[in-house]
Amino acid sequence: MTEGVAHGQLAGLDQIDGVGRDGVRGGYSRHLWNDSDMQLRSWFVERAEQLGLAIEYDRNANIWAWWGAPGDDAIVTGSHLDSVPGGGAFDGPLGVVSALEAVAALKRDGFAPSRPFAILVFAEEEGSRFGVACLGSALMAGAISPDRVRALVDAEGQSYADAARRVGFDAAHIGRDEESLRRIGLFLELHVEQGRGLIELGSATAIASSILAHGRWTLTFRGQGNHAGATLMTDRDDPMVTAARAVLEIREAALAAPGARATVGRISAVPGGSNVIASTVTMTLDARAGSDDETRDLVADIAQRVGASEFEENSWSPEVAFDADLAARLQAALGGVPALPSGAGHDAGVLAAAVPTGMIFVRNPTGISHAPQEFAELDDCLEGIEALVTVLKGLL
Amino acid sequence: MTEGVAHGQLAGLDQIDGVGRDGVRGGYSRHLWNDSDMQLRSWFVERAEQLGLAIEYDRNANIWAWWGAPGDDAIVTGSHLDSVPGGGAFDGPLGVVSALEAVAALKRDGFAPSRPFAILVFAEEEGSRFGVACLGSALMAGAISPDRVRALVDAEGQSYADAARRVGFDAAHIGRDEESLRRIGLFLELHVEQGRGLIELGSATAIASSILAHGRWTLTFRGQGNHAGATLMTDRDDPMVTAARAVLEIREAALAAPGARATVGRISAVPGGSNVIASTVTMTLDARAGSDDETRDLVADIAQRVGASEFEENSWSPEVAFDADLAARLQAALGGVPALPSGAGHDAGVLAAAVPTGMIFVRNPTGISHAPQEFAELDDCLEGIEALVTVLKGLL
Repeated sequence: MTEGVAHGQLAGLDQIDGVGRDGVRGGYSRHLWNDSDMQLRSWFVERAEQLGLAIEYDRNANIWAWWGAPGDDAIVTGSHLDSVPGGGAFDGPLGVVSALEAVAALKRDGFAPSRPFAILVFAEEEGSRFGVACLGSALMAGAISPDRVRALVDAEGQSYADAARRVGFDAAHIGRDEESLRRIGLFLELHVEQGRGLIELGSATAIASSILAHGRWTLTFRGQGNHAGATLMTDRDDPMVTAARAVLEIREAALAAPGARATVGRISAVPGGSNVIASTVTMTLDARAGSDDETRDLVADIAQRVGASEFEENSWSPEVAFDADLAARLQAALGGVPALPSGAGHDAGVLAAAVPTGMIFVRNPTGISHAPQEFAELDDCLEGIEALVTVLKGLL
Repeated sequence: MTEGVAHGQLAGLDQIDGVGRDGVRGGYSRHLWNDSDMQLRSWFVERAEQLGLAIEYDRNANIWAWWGAPGDDAIVTGSHLDSVPGGGAFDGPLGVVSALEAVAALKRDGFAPSRPFAILVFAEEEGSRFGVACLGSALMAGAISPDRVRALVDAEGQSYADAARRVGFDAAHIGRDEESLRRIGLFLELHVEQGRGLIELGSATAIASSILAHGRWTLTFRGQGNHAGATLMTDRDDPMVTAARAVLEIREAALAAPGARATVGRISAVPGGSNVIASTVTMTLDARAGSDDETRDLVADIAQRVGASEFEENSWSPEVAFDADLAARLQAALGGVPALPSGAGHDAGVLAAAVPTGMIFVRNPTGISHAPQEFAELDDCLEGIEALVTVLKGLL
């Protein structure tokens, strides 16, 4: 099935194993247009061309690799190559590598598709550089304003538009891409599972039933900066204390809402001196629950509990129900594998509003994702590729 | 008394008003050997030379300005020019400017000192670049190991030794400086008050009785990095939650100990992705109480309450009792101004272990320090300079 395995993992993953390693956090830090992302993009183009696929770049920095002539109503599969800071090796790349392996297997079998087919690699799925997830798919689907995206800035203060220019990409043309949407008859994304769902089900693969509604917010707490030694405890207005209470309230709110998750993953204090009471503390909030209403209720509860000086919404992704016909087809082709809701967002979820989409999950034996411990056993990866091949044969 | 006042503050403060302004935090960010610190050093040298003083640099990057021939057992006054990140205009510079103004006033009066006299500007009092406060005085007094200082790194990972080299200073010779210590017969530091002590006493000036024992620690909390959407609340080991509890426990511990202060001024999460449960959270702790034992007890209570993965001591400054003879002399010369304990550390406190030292505080009507709102009324500053002149006349 696969071209060759080294170090106990898929050859494709092995080829990019050294790209973008994060010496501080562990794992990988592969973010849109940084050196490692550019290396991964080149690697994908080279591998696709070796398989005889033809490369196209769309208006939103996504990469397409066509088997045969590009055309409307194509079967499209793929995922992304970027990671969170210090992320694992599988989240994103497993779907891309599996798509390449599936094409290789189909070609070895002498299979010829009877309709257009492409592998699609989405840009900035994690949102780790510019703070908004699924940029490539959201721009394509018209789910985010191009002006807003051009103006997004990274941690160094560089805008999306400037960062694009530096790698020779013109951000003037980003935005809803009717041509690409017409071309996608159906989008299928294979992805490593990110929780413990498949461990508990005892299955190597599953299909996705839905994606929880989710969003990201920035909370700001203001107080009075002051001297850490000269200011009595009772004279303080310390936003670090308010922020700490907020972290605990956020956890309480999520525990109180069935199935909900809420996370503070980033926090910083200004001015940030060790002998200075902070004047401002800023933190991110990631909140998710089953339906749109449940998630909005969770965030309203959090807002009421924490009393932040500012509570700004950075992104919002409604609940996604994957295409029911495609899900039935996937389950039939895969011998009745289980269907799982996903707590994680995906490009397939963003696209679901515009075209039929579906997902195949591959078991993650650690139950850990967005961290170096993320993993998938080789045998499970191979079963995932086989599932993809089976489904593609049925669709093509 | 003063050479001229613009914008309602001392001319000297007005001259450096534009140096090192922090556009993000407000106030000033003047840190050892950064551009603004270098500008302030040049400004001081120029002003001292205009007054006919002779400049000397010592082995620990401190600047001396001598009135007449350098010699042992001198009367020395001064402070520092560096700031915390986003600090105020007075903490440090007020003591340096007041010393220059006092010399100018004494010269105008035709006064000639009968013993050696110098103004002394200490390097890196705030510890904002390399994390350890009072570097210039601690090195001079032999209170910190030169090897440790050379190896200290700033936020960009640059070592003290490398940063020194970049500005043409050789860190090979830093360390206990017997020659300088012999020269200091007595060190007097004028400083803006950093709490509400003088507001409550209704006095423009005070002398310092003592400095609270204090220290800085780094606390590390480790957990399991994971996906913010796919990980159930009950499956989490989130160090952000443990760290938030620690912030609240630190406040409770300080509130429970009379006169104690404890502050978390800086915090960061690794990997720091908004959609990632952190694997590690690191924070600073600044803790102070009256005596050494009270401060050690406070920190032991905090350590027991927070259960950090690591609890590392970065610096420790024992309680300082200022020289009693000098304090009596200051109070007599100044007509019985009150004596105040200081919650803030000072170079005069570090030197107190090696030479007789004393301090004059000038009222801060906001009670806020280490923040842009730090202030001193012009009339109070002038009263401070007059106090300094009176005391110097008696000593010289």
